[in-house]
Amino acid sequence: MSEKRLLRVLAGERLDPPPVWIMRQAGRYLPEYRELRAGAKSFLDFCYTPAMACEAVLQPLRRFDLDAAILFSDILVVPDALGRKVWFVEGEGPRLEPLLEAETWSLEPPESIPQRLAPVYETVNRLRSALDPDLTLIGFAGGPWTVATYMIQGQGGDKDRCRRFAYQRPADLDALLADLVEATARHLAAQVDAGAECLQIFESWSEGMPEPLFQRAILDPTKRLVARLRELGAQVPVIGFPRGAGALLGRYARETGVTALGVDTQTPAAFARREAPEGMPLQGNLDPQLLIVGGKALEDGARAVVEAFRCSPHIFNLGHGITPQTSPEHLSALVKAVKGG
Amino acid sequence: MSEKRLLRVLAGERLDPPPVWIMRQAGRYLPEYRELRAGAKSFLDFCYTPAMACEAVLQPLRRFDLDAAILFSDILVVPDALGRKVWFVEGEGPRLEPLLEAETWSLEPPESIPQRLAPVYETVNRLRSALDPDLTLIGFAGGPWTVATYMIQGQGGDKDRCRRFAYQRPADLDALLADLVEATARHLAAQVDAGAECLQIFESWSEGMPEPLFQRAILDPTKRLVARLRELGAQVPVIGFPRGAGALLGRYARETGVTALGVDTQTPAAFARREAPEGMPLQGNLDPQLLIVGGKALEDGARAVVEAFRCSPHIFNLGHGITPQTSPEHLSALVKAVKGG
Repeated sequence: MSEKRLLRVLAGERLDPPPVWIMRQAGRYLPEYRELRAGAKSFLDFCYTPAMACEAVLQPLRRFDLDAAILFSDILVVPDALGRKVWFVEGEGPRLEPLLEAETWSLEPPESIPQRLAPVYETVNRLRSALDPDLTLIGFAGGPWTVATYMIQGQGGDKDRCRRFAYQRPADLDALLADLVEATARHLAAQVDAGAECLQIFESWSEGMPEPLFQRAILDPTKRLVARLRELGAQVPVIGFPRGAGALLGRYARETGVTALGVDTQTPAAFARREAPEGMPLQGNLDPQLLIVGGKALEDGARAVVEAFRCSPHIFNLGHGITPQTSPEHLSALVKAVKGG
Repeated sequence: MSEKRLLRVLAGERLDPPPVWIMRQAGRYLPEYRELRAGAKSFLDFCYTPAMACEAVLQPLRRFDLDAAILFSDILVVPDALGRKVWFVEGEGPRLEPLLEAETWSLEPPESIPQRLAPVYETVNRLRSALDPDLTLIGFAGGPWTVATYMIQGQGGDKDRCRRFAYQRPADLDALLADLVEATARHLAAQVDAGAECLQIFESWSEGMPEPLFQRAILDPTKRLVARLRELGAQVPVIGFPRGAGALLGRYARETGVTALGVDTQTPAAFARREAPEGMPLQGNLDPQLLIVGGKALEDGARAVVEAFRCSPHIFNLGHGITPQTSPEHLSALVKAVKGG
């Protein structure tokens, strides 16, 4: 049994205080990150330069008493490696050429992913030796539907057009998701080969899906993804985070084969515990807005989250990523409030 | 017992086929609506002109075999009547002067609402006599939190700032919600006095709220609103529609005192039935995107909704408002698919 606190919880143990990490803990809210980032030509170049990506991962660990490091990368490296051009518009977000109006498209073979994304695995490899041995190294990828939505509409935001695409071109959607399942499985397996000790699947756009479409575009592909990962030899724990799944969270927890469940801000711990398989580790779910507000509201909110999840193996985290306008001092205060330091 | 099909279902009866109405059934997807609207100086003028508002309500009833008419108005007439200037930016949506940075504010007394919104009740009154006697006339208002979010941030969209306001200024939030509860109760009671036979509360921004804030800003004010309505003598059924409530839908259904529950696109009928009090009428929940797509996908989707809600008293509707790009022919096909005509 591992001594690492995050892995112990993922193996089903309850720890007091819970281990802590923060979604987007390496990022724009840190001045040293903004400085580092300014040295790269583009955001993808930054992700593909191991020295820079490693440094970004290590920055928050020098400031805060966190229990895990997470690879610095982006969910859109997968479509990029599949041959769909990806670029980032400053202050707006990612752009791709949308599949929405394309009659057909061709992607690079998913088997070529590990070669195409070699710099990402080099980053993981370097991190493995750079990290304090108590810390767990987390790899990640976007969920198939979430990545598909960016590919279909060419950007983030409103998912209405993606649902129409799903209704109008179900066979094309299935083919796209199948390619993403295989590519994502290989991408995650390569991270594990390079040293990732657990994985998170960010299904960030799980909201607003009628149940039949949730089944087709989220449940079935995720189940195939987890099974394929196991076939490829990756045996580490997998945290599934279907943000906004709402009433459908239980189906995700029970049917996809994930080891642990990320819980969003809106979903009460008691609901997640009731819906998930007995004893499933839960991760979450402080409102990131409290981390901007700070002070007593933050400390009370943090303690309420710890209390609410006390009956489950629990990894403390936010219910959504930390925002750029957060003060690093507030994150220090949060970690102290959780760990009682 | 009423003969009106919608009211029979709201009284707990199951009807086959279910009664049908469509959120935003009077609106921009109809060419005759766009023509009518072009004759008004502003959107609020349109809402405050009984002849125009009546005509907008009647337009869809001439085309489609619907079971209800809903008042044509806007949820922001309440802040307008409370003295907060409201205007609509073409193609963008409503704007108000935000309370976000205001140290203090003063509102007109909620008791003055029935006098200030007299043209709205005149519209209801005219509709009562203009409507086919088989049709039910629905009045409505925004839920207190939803209206508060527009007042706080001065527009729709991202609710992060509203949650920060709630954390930073809880007493100001409570005061604002208390005023909105009283004003909304009076507004809804005046609609009933003028002839509305049931009411819907649109709590359109229920998503993304941590449970303690959902309790404070949605559950408690809605409970007070329904109780206050009853005190004011309005005894008609109330449909509560907390869109995006997800895991918290059951608490809304059980704790607020609403008669019936609007179910959004994402929430399965079986989940709503399990979470709501035994026998509570449910309304919903076809994906509005299917109504744009049309064809077999629409018909199959409509039949699946009817089937899924068969074990509850059910009012067929969308899970969200009809969108402007919908073809009226698709709505005809939908009503036929539901009613087997």
